[in-house]
Order: sequence, then C-alpha cells, then structure tokens
Amino acid sequence: MEIGEAERAELIAALHQMADAAASYTLPLFRSPELSTSDKGHEGWFDPVTQADRAAEQAIRKVISARYPDDSILGEEFPPTEGSTGRTWVLDPIDGTRAFMSGMPSWGTLIGLDTGNGPILGLIDQPYIGERFVGGFGKASLFHRENERPIATRPCSSLNDAILYSTFPEIGTAAEKAGFASVDARTRLTRYGTDCYGYALLAMGQCDLVIEAGLNAYDIQGPLAVVEAAGGIVTGWKGEPAHHGGRVLAAGDREVHMQALEYLSKVPD
Amino acid sequence: MEIGEAERAELIAALHQMADAAASYTLPLFRSPELSTSDKGHEGWFDPVTQADRAAEQAIRKVISARYPDDSILGEEFPPTEGSTGRTWVLDPIDGTRAFMSGMPSWGTLIGLDTGNGPILGLIDQPYIGERFVGGFGKASLFHRENERPIATRPCSSLNDAILYSTFPEIGTAAEKAGFASVDARTRLTRYGTDCYGYALLAMGQCDLVIEAGLNAYDIQGPLAVVEAAGGIVTGWKGEPAHHGGRVLAAGDREVHMQALEYLSKVPD
Repeated sequence: MEIGEAERAELIAALHQMADAAASYTLPLFRSPELSTSDKGHEGWFDPVTQADRAAEQAIRKVISARYPDDSILGEEFPPTEGSTGRTWVLDPIDGTRAFMSGMPSWGTLIGLDTGNGPILGLIDQPYIGERFVGGFGKASLFHRENERPIATRPCSSLNDAILYSTFPEIGTAAEKAGFASVDARTRLTRYGTDCYGYALLAMGQCDLVIEAGLNAYDIQGPLAVVEAAGGIVTGWKGEPAHHGGRVLAAGDREVHMQALEYLSKVPD
Repeated sequence: MEIGEAERAELIAALHQMADAAASYTLPLFRSPELSTSDKGHEGWFDPVTQADRAAEQAIRKVISARYPDDSILGEEFPPTEGSTGRTWVLDPIDGTRAFMSGMPSWGTLIGLDTGNGPILGLIDQPYIGERFVGGFGKASLFHRENERPIATRPCSSLNDAILYSTFPEIGTAAEKAGFASVDARTRLTRYGTDCYGYALLAMGQCDLVIEAGLNAYDIQGPLAVVEAAGGIVTGWKGEPAHHGGRVLAAGDREVHMQALEYLSKVPD
C-alpha cells in the first residue's frame, strides 16, 4: 500500500503529538519525589513500573484514539486494543524504567507504526536531554531542542573497529550471555546500560552495534524504524525479522552485521 | 585556614569560568567527525584520548594561570605544575572519554580544588545535557541550563534498598570484581556505564552508592567535593580518605556506606 506525501506528513505530526503527550507526564515525574515504583515481578526478575509509565501510555493512547480510532494499539502497560485497519501503534511509554527511577536520562519513549511486516515509522524520544529521533519513509532525523538535522549510520567493515552498546550484562540467558561475549571479545569497545539510547547512538553513527535479548515488540519497533531509516539493519540473531522482539542485532553497516551474525547465529534457541 | 565569603564566591566564579572554557572545546567535538581518538595504551588497557581532552585541559590551565599563577595544577593530560600556595587544582577535562567518543552524554569535566587534605570545592560539568554540579563550603547545587537548585543525597539505611552505580564490570582486578560482586548481590538495583555521572546522580539523591576502583586523584576530586557538599560520604574501600584515588566507595547515607564497607574492606590490597 503506497502512502502519499500528505499522509506521511500527517503520520509524522501524529507521532510528535504522541511523544509530546507522553513527555508531559514523564518529565514532571523524572527525578521527582512523587515518583513511586512498584515491581511487576515477571518471572522473578525485578521489573519496575511507575505511575509515569502508565500515565504516559494513556496519554499516547488518547492521541491515537482521537486521530486513528480504528487502528490497533500494542503497549507495554495496558491490554492490546484491536482495530480494523491493519495498522498497529506499538508503544513503550518509558523504555528503561530502571534508568528513569534512578535519574539517568538514557530512558526513552518508543513508538512504532506497524503495518504488518514491521514498523514503517518510529521514534525514540528523550525529553530531558531534549532529543527526539524520528525515522521512516527513508528519512531519519534528530530533533534537538529547536533544531532538526538528518542522521545516518556510519560505515564499519570489521568487528575489530566496532563500538558495541548493550544493556547486558544484566539481561539474557546463560547461552545468550555466552553468545554476546563471543562478539564482545572481538570489538574495539563495549559499553553498557544505555537502554534504547544505544539505538539512537547507532542511528547517529556514534556506535556500530547494539545487541540485546529478551525484547518485546514494543521495545524494538520504535528503534528499528529509526535505525533502518538512518541506513542501518536490524534483525534477530539468526538474521530473521526482529519486529516481534526476542534477540536483536542492530548494526550501522551490513558488513559488521554479517560478522556479528556469524557468532550470534550459533547460540541455541 | 578560614576562607572568607568574598574569596569563596571568587573561587566558585573561577570554577565556572574553567568549566565554560573546557566546554568551548569539548562541545564542538562531541559527536563531530573531526574527533580523532588515539590510544594511550597504559598497561595494555584501551585508554583513549582525543584532541578534545587535551584542548580542554589547556583551556582550564589557561584560566588557572591567569587567575591563580602560584597554584599547583594536577591534570590528566599534561605534567603537573608545581606552585607555592599549597593549593592544587585537580582536573580531568573529559572523564569518560569512552562515552565521549561514542556519543553518550555521561562524560563530564571534573575539577577539584585541593588544599592538602582533599577538595574543598569541586564540579562535575556535563555541557551537552546542560547540567553543572557544583559542591563546596557546605553547599551543593545543580545548574541546569539557566536554573540553579540545591541538591542533596537521600537517606538509605539498608543495602537491600540501595541503587548502585558503577563503571564496572569493565574496570578492576579479579579481587576487586569479587568485592564489588559481594555488594552488588545485595543491592536492589545495579546500573553500569555512567562514568562520573553516577556521582552526580548520588549527589542528587537519585541513587545510593557508587563503587569504583583504579581511580586517579583527578577522577575523584571533583565528584568527591560535590557528593560531600550534598551530604554524602566518599572513602576508600577500607574507610580511608579517597582524594588520592584508588578504590572508591561513595554513599549518600552513612548507614549504607558502613554496610557496603563491611564487604569491600575484606578485599585484599
């Protein structure tokens, strides 16, 4: 289905409106004594949620319901909304709640628009720093406070030259950790603890790889759209589509993606 | 030696001038294609330095030479300057060069003013986010873009409730890693990869502990002044003074500091 110029502009404007709505709830609670954290306690893993996550998702849902009442919604904090258009808005109001609850501005609001085969448009928003990364329809931009500038991934032809970002060593099974370590051992530099911000750095050409595991669709669709629009590639650890989540390998250059895949594809399911 | 109100204000103004001077060299090179990184290659460890580190340190030294020509200077990138006043400006132009060279705004410019027994005044500056943390003379502040607000550490009486920040698992000997792990296993949440920004989060009451090893005096004097002015405590892993660097344990509350010390003090030298 071809999407015309006017509809593209309209969808991008909607995306900005959603991010603004989310920020109006996240920012006032960031580093606030009013913030209260509880544990969703999935699978024995500390899985924090705050009233900011819930309020921000509701704010985004309100924008969607008003503008696109027949679209589906898949969000982290509330049950899915089934629509009829074949389009799904895939939302994580605060990716990196652990960063959020400890004052670190590496969390972000993630939104992707999935038409069935992955996101055609998406966003990573970090409102405290004042950075919004938008990608889709072959174009990726960073909006930094008042300025918009195009962003692009950078060339990287060898793992030896690569800078790798990850939320590891915190997340993953033993097999996944070993797979990650086999790539980590060959990179120039590995950095941790960035949450979604690692994908933004990748899209800007500041790093070369992001490797993660245990993701949900709402963790990856926004970043996926941004990274691919910036010229990068995002797949699973066996090269399969990544928009459903799971194990993700994102790279700025196909060459280094292929080299990392050689190691990661050996990790048993 | 008592320092009067006027001299205090003058020293704080000098500190701001130094940080502004450093930022005028770091910010234009942050995420710039002009940035070039080389490896100082200390002890087989990837120890990157860029022209931004060197230019920023020179800019700070120029301010010191003009305002306080008889003070000593200890900086990361150039040989020490021996003065005659008993005062030493202790500088790290870019703490977190690995973050700097990969686009992550968790690096900072660190400056401390040591009168012999540790810093009486210090600063952590993160100019991309627009945050400057200043501590000394019993007062700690965050300057965020145009606004100044007081900051303070938060109470935390138990390791089980503590949020721990560190650059680990990247840095440290095997014994240090084991010591760190013994505390890590008991905290509520551990986060990595913050460089000096972890101390800023501690001073703001956003986390409870920062544990590091292998530090130099210039890595810790700025943060030490900020954290202690905000109500926290910064020592070595045996409770000794930390302003010479080495292994550092910083806490917002004496209670949780004591509990972490119980584990860390067992680590052999």
